[in-house]
Amino acid sequence: MTAYTLDLQPIGRRAQVRSGTTLLEGAQRSGVELVSVCGGAGLCGTCRVQQLEGDLTPVSADEREELSAAEIAAGWRLACQCEPLSDVKLYIPAESLSSAQRLQLEGAAAEIERDPVIRLVDVDLAPPSTEDLRADMQRLADHLGADYPASPAFMRQFAQTARTNDWSLRIAIRDGELIAALPRAQRALGLAVDIGTTGLAAYLIDLDTGVTLAKAGAMNPQIAYGEDVISRVAYASTHADGATVLQARLVTTLNDLVTTLCNQAGAQPQQVIEAVLVGNSAMHHLVVGLPVQQLGEAPYVPVMAAALAFPAAQIGLNIAPAAYVYLPPLIAGYVGADHVAMLLATGAPDADQTTLALDIGTNTEITLVAGGHCWSCSCASGPAFEGAHIKDGMRAAPGAVERIDLFDGKVMLKTIENKPPVGICGSGILDAVSVMVEHRLVNERGSLNAEHPLISERAFVLAPADPAAGTKAVSVTRQDVNEIQLAKSAIRTGIDLLLEAAGVEASAIESFVIAGAFGSYINVESAVKIGMFPALPRERFTQVGNAAGMGACHLLLSHAQRQIAADLVARVNYIELTTVPAFQDRFIANLMLTPPSKGQT
Amino acid sequence: MTAYTLDLQPIGRRAQVRSGTTLLEGAQRSGVELVSVCGGAGLCGTCRVQQLEGDLTPVSADEREELSAAEIAAGWRLACQCEPLSDVKLYIPAESLSSAQRLQLEGAAAEIERDPVIRLVDVDLAPPSTEDLRADMQRLADHLGADYPASPAFMRQFAQTARTNDWSLRIAIRDGELIAALPRAQRALGLAVDIGTTGLAAYLIDLDTGVTLAKAGAMNPQIAYGEDVISRVAYASTHADGATVLQARLVTTLNDLVTTLCNQAGAQPQQVIEAVLVGNSAMHHLVVGLPVQQLGEAPYVPVMAAALAFPAAQIGLNIAPAAYVYLPPLIAGYVGADHVAMLLATGAPDADQTTLALDIGTNTEITLVAGGHCWSCSCASGPAFEGAHIKDGMRAAPGAVERIDLFDGKVMLKTIENKPPVGICGSGILDAVSVMVEHRLVNERGSLNAEHPLISERAFVLAPADPAAGTKAVSVTRQDVNEIQLAKSAIRTGIDLLLEAAGVEASAIESFVIAGAFGSYINVESAVKIGMFPALPRERFTQVGNAAGMGACHLLLSHAQRQIAADLVARVNYIELTTVPAFQDRFIANLMLTPPSKGQT
Repeated sequence: MTAYTLDLQPIGRRAQVRSGTTLLEGAQRSGVELVSVCGGAGLCGTCRVQQLEGDLTPVSADEREELSAAEIAAGWRLACQCEPLSDVKLYIPAESLSSAQRLQLEGAAAEIERDPVIRLVDVDLAPPSTEDLRADMQRLADHLGADYPASPAFMRQFAQTARTNDWSLRIAIRDGELIAALPRAQRALGLAVDIGTTGLAAYLIDLDTGVTLAKAGAMNPQIAYGEDVISRVAYASTHADGATVLQARLVTTLNDLVTTLCNQAGAQPQQVIEAVLVGNSAMHHLVVGLPVQQLGEAPYVPVMAAALAFPAAQIGLNIAPAAYVYLPPLIAGYVGADHVAMLLATGAPDADQTTLALDIGTNTEITLVAGGHCWSCSCASGPAFEGAHIKDGMRAAPGAVERIDLFDGKVMLKTIENKPPVGICGSGILDAVSVMVEHRLVNERGSLNAEHPLISERAFVLAPADPAAGTKAVSVTRQDVNEIQLAKSAIRTGIDLLLEAAGVEASAIESFVIAGAFGSYINVESAVKIGMFPALPRERFTQVGNAAGMGACHLLLSHAQRQIAADLVARVNYIELTTVPAFQDRFIANLMLTPPSKGQT
Repeated sequence: MTAYTLDLQPIGRRAQVRSGTTLLEGAQRSGVELVSVCGGAGLCGTCRVQQLEGDLTPVSADEREELSAAEIAAGWRLACQCEPLSDVKLYIPAESLSSAQRLQLEGAAAEIERDPVIRLVDVDLAPPSTEDLRADMQRLADHLGADYPASPAFMRQFAQTARTNDWSLRIAIRDGELIAALPRAQRALGLAVDIGTTGLAAYLIDLDTGVTLAKAGAMNPQIAYGEDVISRVAYASTHADGATVLQARLVTTLNDLVTTLCNQAGAQPQQVIEAVLVGNSAMHHLVVGLPVQQLGEAPYVPVMAAALAFPAAQIGLNIAPAAYVYLPPLIAGYVGADHVAMLLATGAPDADQTTLALDIGTNTEITLVAGGHCWSCSCASGPAFEGAHIKDGMRAAPGAVERIDLFDGKVMLKTIENKPPVGICGSGILDAVSVMVEHRLVNERGSLNAEHPLISERAFVLAPADPAAGTKAVSVTRQDVNEIQLAKSAIRTGIDLLLEAAGVEASAIESFVIAGAFGSYINVESAVKIGMFPALPRERFTQVGNAAGMGACHLLLSHAQRQIAADLVARVNYIELTTVPAFQDRFIANLMLTPPSKGQT
């Protein structure tokens, strides 16, 4: 078996691959995560790389469809379609590199009072002797004055730590169970992770002080098995070990994050004595190891909706050996624990104000709190805001157009890291459509105004191609506008129907909370202009960033927050939108780009 | 139709037989395989049994041909030729038992009332629908009328089993936790295993009926890492992954046993919803995954002595995914859970009689019950009875000399499976030393009598070398006798010191219970003759076979038995022999081979 070296530039990574391996597989095995929306089928063109040196297998028919003759001449290839025939040097453009994506770690959060989930007790024990033959665990129980249950994992850690620390330790007690035995000098830490379908945001927290010691992000490695929740559920359901593979990949990345966070904080993974994981229902079920097939089929019921706590070792999470994982409750099959965590972080469940909080993604979850009651729903807003189904769409990676404005008839762009424009991300496409509506490049139905000087070849050209830089033109087509119409109508229809269920006018919303990575980067005015959000005064809108991650941190530190989560889920009214009679009519009406939806504001 | 009870000793099995059934048929129907070369025709004399109590049909002409008048006077009969006329107690000599396998599965046990540890509930659930979006677990909780906790492993099994069985299942509830979801038609099974240092004995039991469906034995695979407990503790302590390796090897064999048992019973491992494991403290700690180094160093304390219950998946035991493993408590570092199980099976803890129960091995554990109190100790009896440190010693395998007698100055041998003698096993060396003492081949200090005609080349030659058969001579040396002196003194000293602690004379022992594989094959008279056991009337001795295995079965079926185990351990007085001032003097005195220990009997 021959092995070749891949030299991956500009990131400077080398990878050994065996002949017969595609560049995509080779790069992924070496830890370089290339974007591969279609899973390596040669259909999406997202895994573009440029051949700088060496020989590759001949250009395939799929490559000829996805790449222009000029691109092929310049050495551009699809990494999933070719294999090395020698050592090879490759250029990987930023848009093909999924890990370069911006992952939001910061978030706004209400203040909470700490109410520790875990009690820490310092103990000094008498060592065993011929006169004192008590078993280790009996020795501890006598000292603590209570016979707390414990797992073998705790017993093992306790017996070893006691003997290497002169029987002087810190004992962690969780809900009446012994869960960790630390050397006296070690800090007790907690891990909070928001498991997004695309990205993970992880936080390491000192449980004594509540201080966040470290933060880190990572791509969700399950992306290799499907871009969105639906395709991952399908993968898990149609492959024998599908769910196990998805779980294992995710846990491997979680363990990498734990290592990264601990290195940042100068700590050891065994000091992490509690983990809080939040995610949508599919991420929740996959990480716990619950079946997901029924989440992909009507009536979309979860296996378990209540809060969960179980030993971290059960899923292979490498933290303290007897530590627990806690996951807050789900509201419904498509309103997950991440939404609950977000609501907690914003304080919405207990707000006196009429509050609407939403987290925009492929599914957009919305909760309305009014008069002490809660209503929630989930909208199928689709992946357009993540750059999918958009001709030049891409994730929020360097070179993505993220802001657009027209000034004196000229297009003004802002790209991520101010790199030459290579595509358009969610906030960019939202701005683009808003500009097109305002300046009448499209009508309210989404038809292009071919007469407009900025429309060229049936598209709104944001940036022309630059063959020297190897960049294509970036433009917005009618199909792109239509995708945004579908997305924004889904969201607005969800908002409208919740308001109707509650008997509240849109204008009565005192606080409109926009959570999530995408939501924190969007121009709210653009969302209002195209009718995605109701036209409220600007100051009523708040963009809170990764509030789900903040909520996870709160759940790590506060037992009371866990109780609030349970109470919230018990009292929320879940609205299954597709069963609401007015849904279809309202959805069609909300497809119009302007004026804002009738009946609202 | 009248039915009688056969009490089969020393294996301690009870069998119900109808009148008109021969003892041979009755024994065989209860699973006790007697040798019957002629197929019950009364011609071969292989099915010899001794009538101890009760009435049998008159001695037949065939029996008068096969048995001597003295034998008939002593109650010897051919099992194929006689039928019970009342309840009968029989002694079955080892040579009449056909199963040459020496991993003992059979054992005597007191009757217990069943008191299920696990509650089984049949449920029929309404499937989810658009009108009923409850999560699976909520659906079950509503049906059961209580929100029992459950692990993700249960949830996974429940969600899948429900959907493949039309939501009609059997739910197993253990101590308020949901632990298994079976298809309605499947039996719920339990696994009981006695984990010996040398061999494993495993039992598969129907939890609904209490019936033992299958039995299987296996060698302990840890033997590859050390013959005895001490060497395994050393291996675990001196190799980085030593304990993990020993645990993994053992669990692999346990899983093989589960497969074997399930195949025998036509069942699936996932039907096994509870496992009880018993073993000495080292086997207990190793299988649980607790550190063992401190078991090998003074003061020899266990990490955990109380009863343990934890998910079987934590040690990789492949039974029902959310099933638990239960291990009864230990009494001390060297008086393990197997001893507790043995005591339970014999009913000793609650006996009104003054009872002494012991299990002979490399360590011999002894418990004395008198006047409602309990005393226990452990003696370092060494591996001589397992054939180690004996010149021609071997395990109880085919060709091992297991019985020795002198008749008219000639050595009479019985070997296992009547194969040509290749060595001597524990019961054989015990008989040999007894014969040597009785016939003055050795004096009471263990010095050989070189003048004795049976002593040749400073050894008692049991069988000469047979160059034709390729066998060596089998003989007993002075060193061998000395090893037995050390072993028997350790055991007798333990017995003596327990009696002294209790203030009880040896003659007051009303029931002397000998458990374990070795103990069930020994000639009790030989043990008395060399002073290993006190000289009690023969009928006070009972050889109960693998009582630890029987105790494990009881613990599987009865919550009350688990309570009795906990109570026993709480009230037992553990005597650390080496700290008793009289120990050294008593040990030296007990090295004498005859007469029996002073101050006793």
